[in-house]
Amino acid sequence: MKKFNTSPISGAQELLPETQAIFNNLKNKIAEVYKSHGFFDVETPSIERTEILLAKAGGDTEKQIYKVVKTAESAEGASQALRFDHTVPLARYVIEHENNLAFPFKVSQIGTNFRGERAQKGRFREFYQCDVDVIGRESLPIAYDADVISTLLDAFKSFELDTPVLARISNRKILTGFMEAHNLTALSAEIMNIIDHAEKVTPEQTKVALEELDLNKTTIKDIFTLIELNGHRSTIVSTLNELEIENSTFAEGVTELDQVLYLLESIGLTEQITADLKIVRGLDYYTGTVFEFILPEHKNIGSVCGGGRYENLTKHFSEKSFPGVGGSIGLTRLFYILNEKSLIKSRNKELVDYAIIPVSEHEYDEAMNVATKLRDKNLSTTVVFLNKKLGDKLSYAAKLATHGIVIGESEIGAKTLRAKNFETGEENTVNIEVVSNPEDFWAD
Amino acid sequence: MKKFNTSPISGAQELLPETQAIFNNLKNKIAEVYKSHGFFDVETPSIERTEILLAKAGGDTEKQIYKVVKTAESAEGASQALRFDHTVPLARYVIEHENNLAFPFKVSQIGTNFRGERAQKGRFREFYQCDVDVIGRESLPIAYDADVISTLLDAFKSFELDTPVLARISNRKILTGFMEAHNLTALSAEIMNIIDHAEKVTPEQTKVALEELDLNKTTIKDIFTLIELNGHRSTIVSTLNELEIENSTFAEGVTELDQVLYLLESIGLTEQITADLKIVRGLDYYTGTVFEFILPEHKNIGSVCGGGRYENLTKHFSEKSFPGVGGSIGLTRLFYILNEKSLIKSRNKELVDYAIIPVSEHEYDEAMNVATKLRDKNLSTTVVFLNKKLGDKLSYAAKLATHGIVIGESEIGAKTLRAKNFETGEENTVNIEVVSNPEDFWAD
Repeated sequence: MKKFNTSPISGAQELLPETQAIFNNLKNKIAEVYKSHGFFDVETPSIERTEILLAKAGGDTEKQIYKVVKTAESAEGASQALRFDHTVPLARYVIEHENNLAFPFKVSQIGTNFRGERAQKGRFREFYQCDVDVIGRESLPIAYDADVISTLLDAFKSFELDTPVLARISNRKILTGFMEAHNLTALSAEIMNIIDHAEKVTPEQTKVALEELDLNKTTIKDIFTLIELNGHRSTIVSTLNELEIENSTFAEGVTELDQVLYLLESIGLTEQITADLKIVRGLDYYTGTVFEFILPEHKNIGSVCGGGRYENLTKHFSEKSFPGVGGSIGLTRLFYILNEKSLIKSRNKELVDYAIIPVSEHEYDEAMNVATKLRDKNLSTTVVFLNKKLGDKLSYAAKLATHGIVIGESEIGAKTLRAKNFETGEENTVNIEVVSNPEDFWAD
Repeated sequence: MKKFNTSPISGAQELLPETQAIFNNLKNKIAEVYKSHGFFDVETPSIERTEILLAKAGGDTEKQIYKVVKTAESAEGASQALRFDHTVPLARYVIEHENNLAFPFKVSQIGTNFRGERAQKGRFREFYQCDVDVIGRESLPIAYDADVISTLLDAFKSFELDTPVLARISNRKILTGFMEAHNLTALSAEIMNIIDHAEKVTPEQTKVALEELDLNKTTIKDIFTLIELNGHRSTIVSTLNELEIENSTFAEGVTELDQVLYLLESIGLTEQITADLKIVRGLDYYTGTVFEFILPEHKNIGSVCGGGRYENLTKHFSEKSFPGVGGSIGLTRLFYILNEKSLIKSRNKELVDYAIIPVSEHEYDEAMNVATKLRDKNLSTTVVFLNKKLGDKLSYAAKLATHGIVIGESEIGAKTLRAKNFETGEENTVNIEVVSNPEDFWAD
């Protein structure tokens, strides 16, 4: 018999059932939170026309893209490929369905994307991204930036992690305006890039990098003053104003940051957010608010969520203007990290609630009836149909379920049944007609 | 500006947000029902090694498979491809993780598969399949066949369709044994194929097809007698026994069918199931129980769910024996049909529960706080941040939400707010602190 390699392909997440249940639990929580904030979930096809995907992309993206071909076609001319993010398909979707959407369009997308990256630990070639975006037509009020950030913070809150989460927020207009005021616009891209990487190197290295751009000492000092600013609204906004930078872009950035921080703080998100002027989030895309989430007790992990405001979602596809703000949780990578650091609580609750164990085949029907009653009370229930000794059945049941109920001849028709809690070993008798949650079994 | 085709690729499902919400609702219900029956959800990668996918496949499957290539590779030698069903990846998964699984392994898989079929109405190239399977090691009790069927019936029940669902159940061993007893084993494949298609043609055409195999009249009459059998356990089993067919495979099939029907009927599934000896479910895969679900009021739709018992899930990958039983709901196709026939109830509940409408920017913070309170009570809530007239804000809100709450200067800090039901137009005042579900608004 031919010997096959049965491992999943390199760079793919494949989980054992108990771990998959924990992953699904996080994914479902994200979906619930997004929905609770009024985002409408949308699912675009995994496969798009290559020209759509590459309209904006370039460089690494084009190298990493997976083309999709039928047998005997060549990849070179392949007209279809797997999506590498949710943004490009969303842009296409908004153009295509514009007349059937209500703007601002609050949209969520939860699904896998594909990138043929070099395989390495914690990097995946197929990975879940859980995006929220608010898309305006012509204009979009700044309050939606706070809406997106508070939604993503709620998603993290729903995870009940064993560690706090912090949203670091900035506004790109502040740095842009600062450059304009210092006549550094020509070097803007280089300086932004250095700031974007400042946390990955020492302050000395950042200083050297800036010096290599022939910036003078005062300018470098001013840049350091700016990017070292962080804290709550009460201090950060006044400090920024005290810099007395005469530039309308700068002023606009400060006002927007002020508004976003104000709204977030006004709904009680004070400990969970901070302004931080070091946050840039890459060079290409974002034009106003930018944010990233970190786990402050595990700073080396880096960003666990990011996003921001962009000028026009559809700029590669249409002359129309659809400004937006959005953010994304890279769930596959995040889950990998959270597992590695053991930051996810309460694994056991992902087991089946009850295993019903008939002593012999004569009790199969009764066992199925008891199972139906438990399911009607929202308790997940499995029946163990095994032609084995009771001990073997019980040890199988204990692997799957938190509680076991044995049904033998004497239990048939009885309203009261024996139940065992597999975790504690505790045994009890229960009234099957009245049980409405697992706790009822151990009530008296 | 370059003009792009922004439609989704041909053969892909792409839904508007309100319709997507209904689709997601069905998908979530399936996931809940599968979980409630003790199935563990598993997700394998979308991309598999081509040799794994093609180990069993042939013919159409190979032609329809989507290869996945990086730029400049050719499709011919492509070593990876998109999965076309959940069965092959599950076989690989079971072999790969055998030592970490508890058998019988009750597993569900909900995700998209890919087939490059000719595009046509109601056929999709990327489509959701929602599978349940129970995989045994060496052996698997027949009761799991009933377990799978009852789980799938529960999934359909959860859809609350405007039409009943019927599970038609047979056992392949009955036909196989019948052929053996009539010395027709050499023609078995041809006869099975004719029976499999009998419902798509007239009885006369079926008769002609059997005559073309040189079967004599008595044999053809016996075949008709058999495949026209259908009904409840009470009649069907005795009728089968009265045929007095002396063959152990036939007898085994009757016993298994009897057991499956007995268990299903004993949990009250009498109206929802019927034995039907016409059911074959293709030629290759199934070896015992076979079933398909139909909507009896819409017979022309054909099967909306199917499955059965197979001898060995992993026969192409391993010498070990993993018998299984499973079934699948082809959700994308099913949803397309249900929509076309308007068989899905209650669309409106998929909107957001509340839209909070601040009169001006001064009420944004208060609006967000009210929204948070409603979300804490499990009510999905969106805040309308628009610099427009109140009338415009209300008409936007009415597109998204079932209820609207306007917050102006006078409402700030008030525990009592005005609320409007957009469906009925009814207005009321509500105590925001005590509301716990939408009904409370209209209680007094």
